[in-house]
Amino acid sequence: MSLLIKNGIIVTSLDEYKADILVEGEKIIAIGEGLDGRAREIVDAAGMYVLPGGIDQHTHFALPFGGTYTRGFETTNAAIVGGTTTIVDFVPQPKGMSLRESVAKHIEEQAKGKAMVDYSFHGMVMDVTNELFEEIPKLPEIGIPTLKMFMAYKGTPFMCDDGVIFRGLQAAKKAGVTMMVHAENGDIIDVLQKQCVEAGQLEPKYHAVSRPPIVETECTSRAITLAEAAGAPLFVVHVSCIGAMEAIRDAFAKGLPIYGETCPHYMVLTVDNLAKPDFEGAKYVCSPALRTPEHLEAMWQAVQKGWLQVVGSDHCGFNWKEQKHIGYYDFTKIPNGAPGVENRLAILWTYGVEKGRITRQRLVDVFATAPAKFNGIFPRKGHIGVGADADFVLFDPAWKGRIAVENSLQGVDFSSYEGMEQIGRADKVFLRGKLVAEKGIFLGELGQGSFIKGEPYGTAYSGL
Amino acid sequence: MSLLIKNGIIVTSLDEYKADILVEGEKIIAIGEGLDGRAREIVDAAGMYVLPGGIDQHTHFALPFGGTYTRGFETTNAAIVGGTTTIVDFVPQPKGMSLRESVAKHIEEQAKGKAMVDYSFHGMVMDVTNELFEEIPKLPEIGIPTLKMFMAYKGTPFMCDDGVIFRGLQAAKKAGVTMMVHAENGDIIDVLQKQCVEAGQLEPKYHAVSRPPIVETECTSRAITLAEAAGAPLFVVHVSCIGAMEAIRDAFAKGLPIYGETCPHYMVLTVDNLAKPDFEGAKYVCSPALRTPEHLEAMWQAVQKGWLQVVGSDHCGFNWKEQKHIGYYDFTKIPNGAPGVENRLAILWTYGVEKGRITRQRLVDVFATAPAKFNGIFPRKGHIGVGADADFVLFDPAWKGRIAVENSLQGVDFSSYEGMEQIGRADKVFLRGKLVAEKGIFLGELGQGSFIKGEPYGTAYSGL
Amino acid sequence: MSLLIKNGIIVTSLDEYKADILVEGEKIIAIGEGLDGRAREIVDAAGMYVLPGGIDQHTHFALPFGGTYTRGFETTNAAIVGGTTTIVDFVPQPKGMSLRESVAKHIEEQAKGKAMVDYSFHGMVMDVTNELFEEIPKLPEIGIPTLKMFMAYKGTPFMCDDGVIFRGLQAAKKAGVTMMVHAENGDIIDVLQKQCVEAGQLEPKYHAVSRPPIVETECTSRAITLAEAAGAPLFVVHVSCIGAMEAIRDAFAKGLPIYGETCPHYMVLTVDNLAKPDFEGAKYVCSPALRTPEHLEAMWQAVQKGWLQVVGSDHCGFNWKEQKHIGYYDFTKIPNGAPGVENRLAILWTYGVEKGRITRQRLVDVFATAPAKFNGIFPRKGHIGVGADADFVLFDPAWKGRIAVENSLQGVDFSSYEGMEQIGRADKVFLRGKLVAEKGIFLGELGQGSFIKGEPYGTAYSGL
Amino acid sequence: MSLLIKNGIIVTSLDEYKADILVEGEKIIAIGEGLDGRAREIVDAAGMYVLPGGIDQHTHFALPFGGTYTRGFETTNAAIVGGTTTIVDFVPQPKGMSLRESVAKHIEEQAKGKAMVDYSFHGMVMDVTNELFEEIPKLPEIGIPTLKMFMAYKGTPFMCDDGVIFRGLQAAKKAGVTMMVHAENGDIIDVLQKQCVEAGQLEPKYHAVSRPPIVETECTSRAITLAEAAGAPLFVVHVSCIGAMEAIRDAFAKGLPIYGETCPHYMVLTVDNLAKPDFEGAKYVCSPALRTPEHLEAMWQAVQKGWLQVVGSDHCGFNWKEQKHIGYYDFTKIPNGAPGVENRLAILWTYGVEKGRITRQRLVDVFATAPAKFNGIFPRKGHIGVGADADFVLFDPAWKGRIAVENSLQGVDFSSYEGMEQIGRADKVFLRGKLVAEKGIFLGELGQGSFIKGEPYGTAYSGL
Repeated sequence: MSLLIKNGIIVTSLDEYKADILVEGEKIIAIGEGLDGRAREIVDAAGMYVLPGGIDQHTHFALPFGGTYTRGFETTNAAIVGGTTTIVDFVPQPKGMSLRESVAKHIEEQAKGKAMVDYSFHGMVMDVTNELFEEIPKLPEIGIPTLKMFMAYKGTPFMCDDGVIFRGLQAAKKAGVTMMVHAENGDIIDVLQKQCVEAGQLEPKYHAVSRPPIVETECTSRAITLAEAAGAPLFVVHVSCIGAMEAIRDAFAKGLPIYGETCPHYMVLTVDNLAKPDFEGAKYVCSPALRTPEHLEAMWQAVQKGWLQVVGSDHCGFNWKEQKHIGYYDFTKIPNGAPGVENRLAILWTYGVEKGRITRQRLVDVFATAPAKFNGIFPRKGHIGVGADADFVLFDPAWKGRIAVENSLQGVDFSSYEGMEQIGRADKVFLRGKLVAEKGIFLGELGQGSFIKGEPYGTAYSGL
Repeated sequence: MSLLIKNGIIVTSLDEYKADILVEGEKIIAIGEGLDGRAREIVDAAGMYVLPGGIDQHTHFALPFGGTYTRGFETTNAAIVGGTTTIVDFVPQPKGMSLRESVAKHIEEQAKGKAMVDYSFHGMVMDVTNELFEEIPKLPEIGIPTLKMFMAYKGTPFMCDDGVIFRGLQAAKKAGVTMMVHAENGDIIDVLQKQCVEAGQLEPKYHAVSRPPIVETECTSRAITLAEAAGAPLFVVHVSCIGAMEAIRDAFAKGLPIYGETCPHYMVLTVDNLAKPDFEGAKYVCSPALRTPEHLEAMWQAVQKGWLQVVGSDHCGFNWKEQKHIGYYDFTKIPNGAPGVENRLAILWTYGVEKGRITRQRLVDVFATAPAKFNGIFPRKGHIGVGADADFVLFDPAWKGRIAVENSLQGVDFSSYEGMEQIGRADKVFLRGKLVAEKGIFLGELGQGSFIKGEPYGTAYSGL
Repeated sequence: MSLLIKNGIIVTSLDEYKADILVEGEKIIAIGEGLDGRAREIVDAAGMYVLPGGIDQHTHFALPFGGTYTRGFETTNAAIVGGTTTIVDFVPQPKGMSLRESVAKHIEEQAKGKAMVDYSFHGMVMDVTNELFEEIPKLPEIGIPTLKMFMAYKGTPFMCDDGVIFRGLQAAKKAGVTMMVHAENGDIIDVLQKQCVEAGQLEPKYHAVSRPPIVETECTSRAITLAEAAGAPLFVVHVSCIGAMEAIRDAFAKGLPIYGETCPHYMVLTVDNLAKPDFEGAKYVCSPALRTPEHLEAMWQAVQKGWLQVVGSDHCGFNWKEQKHIGYYDFTKIPNGAPGVENRLAILWTYGVEKGRITRQRLVDVFATAPAKFNGIFPRKGHIGVGADADFVLFDPAWKGRIAVENSLQGVDFSSYEGMEQIGRADKVFLRGKLVAEKGIFLGELGQGSFIKGEPYGTAYSGL
Repeated sequence: MSLLIKNGIIVTSLDEYKADILVEGEKIIAIGEGLDGRAREIVDAAGMYVLPGGIDQHTHFALPFGGTYTRGFETTNAAIVGGTTTIVDFVPQPKGMSLRESVAKHIEEQAKGKAMVDYSFHGMVMDVTNELFEEIPKLPEIGIPTLKMFMAYKGTPFMCDDGVIFRGLQAAKKAGVTMMVHAENGDIIDVLQKQCVEAGQLEPKYHAVSRPPIVETECTSRAITLAEAAGAPLFVVHVSCIGAMEAIRDAFAKGLPIYGETCPHYMVLTVDNLAKPDFEGAKYVCSPALRTPEHLEAMWQAVQKGWLQVVGSDHCGFNWKEQKHIGYYDFTKIPNGAPGVENRLAILWTYGVEKGRITRQRLVDVFATAPAKFNGIFPRKGHIGVGADADFVLFDPAWKGRIAVENSLQGVDFSSYEGMEQIGRADKVFLRGKLVAEKGIFLGELGQGSFIKGEPYGTAYSGL
């Protein structure tokens, strides 16, 4: 089978130009003009931007939580219709299980036969043992080049002290594993949460009070120092505030290999949402907490300037009714996290490109190219180029509508962005050469996604 | 005519991949596989990297100096054999002549019929009048989107005080003209030069004594502040020292549109060269002056990290015998400048890529892609992509030799890099689809170069 | 004659304590208890703070301007009643006259026989010649350890370019002369003034528009760099804005001997005053210009934290009617400067100590002790200690009133602080043991002041 | 009894001047000339500097360690002969005992009847309970305005996590208690220690390897952030490295009330001492560890510039033979700490004043005045002024000798500064008007010291 995407404007993180794309099987084999004769099928992309399929490097599908789970891979069609063709999911590590086994289990029990996007994984340390540090350098052998540790969530077995983070960085460095951290000072949050509870401040809005920007800024600075001490790179996920962003920016400007990600909700949703009445605020409980407007503006600037390199969704599909309500009487018990895998492109385009805050080139980079690099799947993924997988989005910039849970495939009973205006849409989405979505309708099939092994950063970074 | 470059590894500032390039006329029309049937001629690039033809944004061909000139456009074949297919030359402004007329004169009298590379121009203010500020915003009309002013060279009519720079920035901003500055504090240099001369310190090595890093650092900081005050972008040319580089880096990290260029000689030649006996030191008299090793190392880091965006040659073809010797008895009279348009790629590859200091992607960016953007000729120039001009270098990484004036086409009686090892070479060079050099032999013809109009940065930057 | 000041609370820059002060002749000879028997005269200071007499290191008495002068030394009784017992006046340098001769002339023609405060001098460069740089190191021989140069006022003979400043710093360093600078970028101001005038913006408020904070910040940074290059200390006078203050603060925090002064009007008068109708704004035309409130607050913090070391009045007695009105049709012609030698203590106490912004210790330091040190007259002046001159103020913290021109001795037809509340007052003022003012009434006599020679900073700084 | 100190040069942190000091009972009642007639006894101080008696705010007398103790208050005569007349000792908190009870116990069992210096105390948290945070604000009631917490020593009950530090700061703020911290990252040290032990690196020199500067720098930065979050002042004890010092300096330059202390051994002893053979290195095992020369130089600069405010000895009298040898086979078991209460003045003078690194004024400040302020005992202690306690040192700057354990009264079997040259000596030492030492001979009596209650910083800082 050969397919020609014709008349579109190809947008990369570097340039944009009008050319046709010839796909043979799952790959792009030529770009240019005069290719019609080689195509069995021609798709007219006139008026469309052709973007690489998105890489969402921050998802939590089927994350166990108190006996239940977040929505699983059977809802990954939501990613597809939103223009994301590959996810990098965090693998939960059950107590007593090695990371390697955790990955195998997550693939077997959760992803396989269900995933409708291609998928890679990050390890996620939830059970610290001595064997852990021996296992870390072996992760690339199973296609896992990244590993997350938590510096928050005191009282859980997965909050790591500085010694564990430091040993983790030392171990990671040996084999080119990139360490990621959730950087919030768990000790301080614990104190502030208890002080809120003691004071009878139990509504969702106190979630933000107990996690002020300084807990994220401090912890990010500390994580950077630990990385510097270990001589290892570091990737800080879900950066939400000015101080943390500046710490990352300034570390890079000192020559350290320190990088960071922000998320769409830190770019368009303010802390005021947490104060919505009737427990609606609980929908917006995620960590770090939502921030005041100056932080949102700073996230856009950081994305445009390249001070933060990636925008991931931190998709976490908890239902409001049964799951968020666990914390109805005490915000500290509300599950942290919100859905969004479906909306990343829409938010970046509508509130970024359309508002003149970011260029199309920067959108492509943070949405697809940079996360592909950091996760060792570039240039196969995240880029429109000869030899790459034929994952792309025909993006219709003229479409207008609103985000609404009723149109969502995320399987969650609310949308973080309910009612917000959306400009532009993934008109058609191709995964490895196959049309898998059109105008918001999923056309693919359950389990069509493949596991994509990532290369350690020693290789992948060479293209940075 | 159609041409296929086959089996090479295409290197861009973003990625690298094996693919063939189909050229029709002067343009790349397709990249990929299966294109053989459409080519009349096939060039085998197996074992070669295919790089975009270089953009040297800093040359001084036919620069008048005391009744004589630097070597003119009849020596631009030196650029070609070195892998540079487009230059952006600084147009000298004769006393009493407008910038517009100066450009016309420079094209007519110097470039036309001689240039063997494609060429764009920067305006260069050498005669400050009130009309100047009215003329600046009109420069884009004649294809000139950049303008240089001098903050050094006290006693000449072209040293601009801060008021002139500021007004220049205000005027430039109106029409998207990028202001460039030669940033050295001319007043301090003047004092130090006179103090050297009074002390009988007349040899070339005192050139560096009279231009210490602090004069460049101070002036760069000041230029940045002026740009900030005017709300205008700024491009600092030929950055040579740590302090100036950090000022640019830190301004960008504050969110200001401040950019900078360094040059090959600031990356591989130390200040010790100025002390060479028998007036050989005069060959290395350029401004800013050569620096001590820690500055050189910092320039490489700045190029790899993107803190400086461009490497230009600052090519200035003065002969040692008749021209440099003007300052035989007094270093302050030695013409400032040295040749190098031929060696930029060789230096970046041999001492950068081969030493592991920079990636091939960064090389392509500073050598071709970024200067094309900043000068408003991207993506037509500076990039291998569909629709771009078919300017490229088949680069043989296996070649080894030494740089020597005897092999040079620069028309100057010395080489700045005499005797230095060179790894890799432009095996073949194509200009708009035509083979114009092979293995150091120029195969093109006099006057084959075309004037390429630049777009103002309002357009060009959108791709940044 | 021996005098005992009894029952007061002595306040120094270090501490405060209840003790009596025994004065013999012009000097303090003992402090403590049990001294009554040795005194011929006892002054009861119960309920009073005993402060050292103020040192106002920034006055312009008898400054020539367009054929007229600012009010002269015959109005220095205004200093006395305001609690200032020593001034350090800037000596104007007439065209063609050496600094040494200028000092002699200023003493003979202006100060002698008139001054009612003790007085030291700063040299002030207004005529740059080659001889200047030879003369500078000899200034301490005539008791002048400080020298000011101007970086502003383009078009006048006293605006110095960077080369002159640099040579001045080199020369000053040789003999421990402290260089002071008026740091505003004269070139930029000139452009902005002309742009205002061209746009018909001629009212006093455009004075501030033409001198935005960035011109001061830039110039201060540059002056610091020049001092660093010359290896010399630097004292920046009349700092008015955050950026300039931070540049000084940060230079000191890097280890450089860089110091600064602010003035009462930069602490309590905002830029809005310049917009007062009917040309009243002209009263507030001084350089640097008045600033917005956040700058005022920063000046207080800088004074409390020690980031700026001195508060001087920049007293400049121009009358509004005949002199300020010169610029009635063009703000650029309004003489720059405003009176205030009388009000320094009142402003610092009322708006500093009483508002809790600064401690009494910091007040004493910036008002008296630190300026005495920087001008080489400490510990004879500026401090209450055994061996010091018996200059002090019995300060009544309970007094309340308002500042009004009708009560002023400054001899100027307006007050910068007209109508502002004043808390506390110099109840009695002693100069070298003699009561010279009481409750705002001058009790001394014309010409009672003495010339106090300053020591170069090599000596004076040893106590810092 | 009345005593006159005659003909000396009084040195304060502000100035120095020749005057006589009249003492009545325990207090200074007058300073000046002509006081002879009121004295029963006259001490001639000609040729002497009269310094305030030193305040050593960092001592550990009678600190329990593994069943033994450091030398106790019966050795505090060592302080006296070295010119220190007041110590502020850290009170160990036994398991299960409140801070208040710990203080009472330490006074009763250790200080009372033995102390030969006056003494104040800091609380020292060694048993974290919920009651702790209620007790902290009450400490001023018993004369304790300062409290230390440990961020290091993992595995002990006194290492506090960030939550405890934060709650401590919140509690301290309520009543003007100044929080002090031992700032080293205990988690990282623990990892590095274990890695050393696993690698068989057991000698004393690995003490420094396991505590690199970055663990102190990181922890200091974190402590500052916690203080900023709590809105509380912070005092960082025993700063040893550039990074930590700069963090404190820069926090102050941001406007935060952050202060720090260094110690004589961080100013004159390099890390090389730890490598001395035959377990001699163990004598130099203290925490933070000794550093390389550039850090030592930075400590001197910080003291001169005021970036660190206090020099305390961190005196900890462990014997080498029986106590240090506990760690003979494993450096991690060596008791941390070294003696030095006797040598603080000698080190500051010989290696500071005599080398031109600090002025006499700065010496007095860091040695006596500033620690008196920070511990709420100024101006009674730490200053020569009317009303102050008659604690002073007649310092003979002409004396020369060497530091040797054989002359020491510290009761420890080694000296940290063995064999080092000493210039100047406390010729006579007075405590509350009584001569208590002369030429190194203790002339006082056991138990002569008094408990001096400290005031909370809300009061004491007003004099800063």
